[in-house]
Amino acid sequence: MQEYRDIVVIAGIPGVGKTTVVEEAVKKLKTYKIVNFGDVMFEIAKSEGLVKHRDDMRKLSPETQKKIQRHAAKKIAGMAADSNIIVDTHISIKTPKGYLPGLPLWVLEELEPTKIVIIDATAEEIFLRRKRDNTRRRDDESLESIKFHQRYNIYLAASYSMVSGATVSIVYNKEGKILEAVKELTSILEQD
Amino acid sequence: MQEYRDIVVIAGIPGVGKTTVVEEAVKKLKTYKIVNFGDVMFEIAKSEGLVKHRDDMRKLSPETQKKIQRHAAKKIAGMAADSNIIVDTHISIKTPKGYLPGLPLWVLEELEPTKIVIIDATAEEIFLRRKRDNTRRRDDESLESIKFHQRYNIYLAASYSMVSGATVSIVYNKEGKILEAVKELTSILEQD
Amino acid sequence: MQEYRDIVVIAGIPGVGKTTVVEEAVKKLKTYKIVNFGDVMFEIAKSEGLVKHRDDMRKLSPETQKKIQRHAAKKIAGMAADSNIIVDTHISIKTPKGYLPGLPLWVLEELEPTKIVIIDATAEEIFLRRKRDNTRRRDDESLESIKFHQRYNIYLAASYSMVSGATVSIVYNKEGKILEAVKELTSILEQD
Repeated sequence: MQEYRDIVVIAGIPGVGKTTVVEEAVKKLKTYKIVNFGDVMFEIAKSEGLVKHRDDMRKLSPETQKKIQRHAAKKIAGMAADSNIIVDTHISIKTPKGYLPGLPLWVLEELEPTKIVIIDATAEEIFLRRKRDNTRRRDDESLESIKFHQRYNIYLAASYSMVSGATVSIVYNKEGKILEAVKELTSILEQD
Repeated sequence: MQEYRDIVVIAGIPGVGKTTVVEEAVKKLKTYKIVNFGDVMFEIAKSEGLVKHRDDMRKLSPETQKKIQRHAAKKIAGMAADSNIIVDTHISIKTPKGYLPGLPLWVLEELEPTKIVIIDATAEEIFLRRKRDNTRRRDDESLESIKFHQRYNIYLAASYSMVSGATVSIVYNKEGKILEAVKELTSILEQD
Repeated sequence: MQEYRDIVVIAGIPGVGKTTVVEEAVKKLKTYKIVNFGDVMFEIAKSEGLVKHRDDMRKLSPETQKKIQRHAAKKIAGMAADSNIIVDTHISIKTPKGYLPGLPLWVLEELEPTKIVIIDATAEEIFLRRKRDNTRRRDDESLESIKFHQRYNIYLAASYSMVSGATVSIVYNKEGKILEAVKELTSILEQD
């Protein structure tokens, strides 16, 4: 049993297979609740009458987005009073104007995560999983670009760790070895 | 037309050809004003009677330098009321005591940049451009050392992004392909 | 003579030979006092009756640990009134839950280091030095894992630099060339 509530940020770029690994680990442990950061932001914006559809979120002014991010972080930190929390989010988001930080300072100050876990895979595996994935439309990204995003996320995660004191670890979700990834994630979650 | 004023930090180590790329992009867009961070710092220090020549700047005490940096950042942020701003500066400066951060926390807090763009090139191109450059005297730096500086600047830029929420992108200024670099920079600047 | 007191963080992962390099440099310069961050934390915790043995330190609650870290940083910053200080510490500590930051924001805010020096070596040298080292028990870590820790420390150091304004440099302690490493460190320490 853990003595302190855990707020664990779990991130991974599209195609690493994050959802499956996280859901399996939570099924095993039963003491974690998964919260999607983007969902919480959308609910807040909708309840305040700022947006109707999720696509409208990015049309909000930077100041409004910042306010909603902070609000969402506060709300999630509050949930940790009852349960350990896994925050499903992104270290960075690739946009036409560059890499946008998923957890800027004002989010980290409210959220105060205890652990940051990056789910990763080789760029080649990510590339192939994206090709195979027919349910979601994804832009074709080159191997080089995928590799840069993977490296860049570790640089950003280091700075998130400096601000929050959270530990940073990487769990590799190798092709055909999902149980190993689940085991590794479970073991990290179980650490005090 | 952009709805919000843009404060874009553009940096690149000596030899990447930053000045040409930035000036060409600004000629095309016409909505950006270029400000050199070091120039603004020097003007402030001179007007306060602290220095006469630019070389005297580094002789100022760390506390005084910090104050002038903060003042310069505030002044530049103020200019963004009238125009989009490009801040020409450095991610880090190589000094005999190590890499000095160009945009420490107290600068980022005042400046609040919206985008950070690193102009880059291959280490070999940078090495050759420095050799060819007869107008400015530059210390001979090894390829290895240039490569480290390039990588290190991306690590630092990630932490600048975490604090400010600014996006980070890299524009490659390839030999003989300056128009491509200008086009890419222009496209980043045009993004809301 | 330096005009301003220097607070120099010196770090290096186990096996780089940090202690010898630092002690030799201090013998040469005579103007620096070495302080071990972990020792200062332990003294504080012991004097407050929180722990008896060093191993008990990590059993303290995160909040208590944070308070002691901050206290230690303040105490060390205070010592810099009389002498230049070298803070012997870690950029990050490898734990079962991931890499823990050695100098989180609240430490940097109190400590305000002026220079950060990472003592490094090749992963192969570190691996062999750890094998040879019989006095301390160390977990066998793979070359790949050592290499990741080395890279990750540079990412973290970049973010420490952003917050504090400290310069970052790396001193390589090559096998059989310790005098060169001592000379390089001495030269960095002597810089204003």
